[in-house]
Amino acid sequence: MANVILLNPFEVPAGKEEEALALWERGADVMRKSPGFISTRLHRAISPDARFQLINMAEWESVQHFKAAVESDDFKEAVAGGMEEVPHFPGLYEVIRT
Amino acid sequence: MANVILLNPFEVPAGKEEEALALWERGADVMRKSPGFISTRLHRAISPDARFQLINMAEWESVQHFKAAVESDDFKEAVAGGMEEVPHFPGLYEVIRT
Repeated sequence: MANVILLNPFEVPAGKEEEALALWERGADVMRKSPGFISTRLHRAISPDARFQLINMAEWESVQHFKAAVESDDFKEAVAGGMEEVPHFPGLYEVIRT
Repeated sequence: MANVILLNPFEVPAGKEEEALALWERGADVMRKSPGFISTRLHRAISPDARFQLINMAEWESVQHFKAAVESDDFKEAVAGGMEEVPHFPGLYEVIRT
């Protein structure tokens, strides 16, 4: 099965960048150890007026691998209480044009 | 100067995917010929419930190159009348974590 790409734009409230970064770190630590994880890249906006100050991208071997990781107790514990404060819009994608 | 990454999530209204793809094609045709353009990848959501059905990523040699391309008459003509119908949230980014 083809690899899938997670893209997750974060609407970081003013003054919450450090908190959002720490949240990302905790989640990424779990993801990196999960079966099917390939790589991750966290993008930070160069300009403060970008709607999404952080956008996470990660590559996974399959939808099933990603879902198993997100639904794991380890991941839920790692990000508990943080995600609600940072609106985010995750989706799984495939590249259709280059 | 370090390369910069454009990320542009598109909120594609129901039934407008073909129109949004055509809009992306017209814009990309101009971008590919512009000085400083490196590459582009268009991501389509695997699931219909993702907030952003399309997310464009492009790599540019610099902020200046990207801005010159976006502000060019060729680009404005290529996407004229299309962008207003598809809410989108472009930003320029750097990778801060891997």
